[in-house]
Amino acid sequence: MSTIVYLNDAFIPKEKACISPDDRGFYFADGIYEVIKYYNGKAFCLSDHMERLRRSLSSIRINFTGIDQIESLANELIHLNHMEEGYTGVYMQITRGVNRRMHQFPDESACPTFYMNAYPLPPFINELKKGIRVILREDIRWQRCDIKSIMLLPNVLMYQEAIENGARECFFVRDGYFTESTHSNIFGVKNGEVYTHPDSNHILPGITKRIIVKICNKAGITVKETPVRVKDCKYFDEFFISGTGSEIMPVIQLGDIPVRNGKPGTITRQIQQEFFRITYGEIAGDENYSKWIAD
Amino acid sequence: MSTIVYLNDAFIPKEKACISPDDRGFYFADGIYEVIKYYNGKAFCLSDHMERLRRSLSSIRINFTGIDQIESLANELIHLNHMEEGYTGVYMQITRGVNRRMHQFPDESACPTFYMNAYPLPPFINELKKGIRVILREDIRWQRCDIKSIMLLPNVLMYQEAIENGARECFFVRDGYFTESTHSNIFGVKNGEVYTHPDSNHILPGITKRIIVKICNKAGITVKETPVRVKDCKYFDEFFISGTGSEIMPVIQLGDIPVRNGKPGTITRQIQQEFFRITYGEIAGDENYSKWIAD
Repeated sequence: MSTIVYLNDAFIPKEKACISPDDRGFYFADGIYEVIKYYNGKAFCLSDHMERLRRSLSSIRINFTGIDQIESLANELIHLNHMEEGYTGVYMQITRGVNRRMHQFPDESACPTFYMNAYPLPPFINELKKGIRVILREDIRWQRCDIKSIMLLPNVLMYQEAIENGARECFFVRDGYFTESTHSNIFGVKNGEVYTHPDSNHILPGITKRIIVKICNKAGITVKETPVRVKDCKYFDEFFISGTGSEIMPVIQLGDIPVRNGKPGTITRQIQQEFFRITYGEIAGDENYSKWIAD
Repeated sequence: MSTIVYLNDAFIPKEKACISPDDRGFYFADGIYEVIKYYNGKAFCLSDHMERLRRSLSSIRINFTGIDQIESLANELIHLNHMEEGYTGVYMQITRGVNRRMHQFPDESACPTFYMNAYPLPPFINELKKGIRVILREDIRWQRCDIKSIMLLPNVLMYQEAIENGARECFFVRDGYFTESTHSNIFGVKNGEVYTHPDSNHILPGITKRIIVKICNKAGITVKETPVRVKDCKYFDEFFISGTGSEIMPVIQLGDIPVRNGKPGTITRQIQQEFFRITYGEIAGDENYSKWIAD
């Protein structure tokens, strides 16, 4: 059975989806994207993702008029792919459209390209349970990491290095501080308080990050939006990352150095528990999550 | 008549060229490119471009085995498009290939995508003659500008700003120094000596830049590979940019401030003259260039 994708104005089998080599996404990385997770067919934080999509588009000045249709198109995409049950990622990308290659924006006749596909995105149960190892690398990315652009080559190169080093993520370090990782935000826990990089031009304002702040506020856990200095790692009791796919993922080793006893920490577990209660429990009606994070 | 392009292993009409939405070039900017100028069907500095292509591929670890075929494929492309006469750009792009979206490199079964097209690239006679205005903007790009990657979104955004400000290029400024512009290298002239940014991770090692150094050496003009500080602009007598498309382009105004008397300088003219003698004269057998740069 063919995977169905959405391209510009039609649902089509993926193998028939054809991007022009004159698409500015292909030759200039002139575009942005979003990924939304669907829990048993129900979108999590859709309006936050749409708000960030608007912001990304506006930051790079792409005039895309179809945002209000995305919700129903995504639902239809999930339906056509029989993905109403289970856990699904919906990926969407918007580029400045098709035009002969020139740096200048094309004229108004060039419409943005809109592409969307759905794929299984089950929880990474093993990693959520046991935690992951990460490597540390210099943050060599551009100065507008707050835009969710498709310029992901440094993320690709560093993530590959992580995999080759037996790790599952790479923490970026800029001027001695952790910024974020290749596709997730970074959190540290010290003396029961949660630290994370403030939203700035150096990190993507994570949707899951924002949820974590809310969870902490509700639970009476102090959140300090202060970047963590690499050389202060040793004072931290826990680390974890967050993202639409990673959800709340414990980090148990930074490079060669275990975080404390090398096991997911209690604050991480508490935030996981509440995040999973909301998503897998309340939204999806699936109580299995309690087993993933039992120590 | 259809434009013919080359994609992977075939010459096809451009409108039939189909890039998969699963191409890593489309969703990750996971690829590199080159542009070569053909003067009456003869490539200029082909081996230098091929050397840089190899270097770009190796820097991002794409294993592409077809480099030795590019020269004959490009000749065939020019022939099929009836572009043996005149001035032609040959654009080529190589991405890490087609695979479901994941940051990790795909396995060996994914072949790199190779795309190539040819387009008219006549000299920008008016600008070569009169010079251009440029704007100045902070260099917000990543730390590996020495790789000719397709991550060109900042270049696109800044070039567009240039156009909207009545200029024709944007000089990037990093830590108070000119690095390069959105698609050309920067040169300043002070007291008869030529200054340009040394090759480093902050600029692309320009092929035309290298030719200019050779031209200067031969003419007894001192070249200092030292970056120019923005606040030292006032001490400079001339500015120009170089690139495969721009060739040797005088810069007569930086932001709102004219360079000296606002006319192309004598060293710029001397280098233009020699560059055009080699390319339009020797290679193409076209002596018209002498008229473009007469004051």
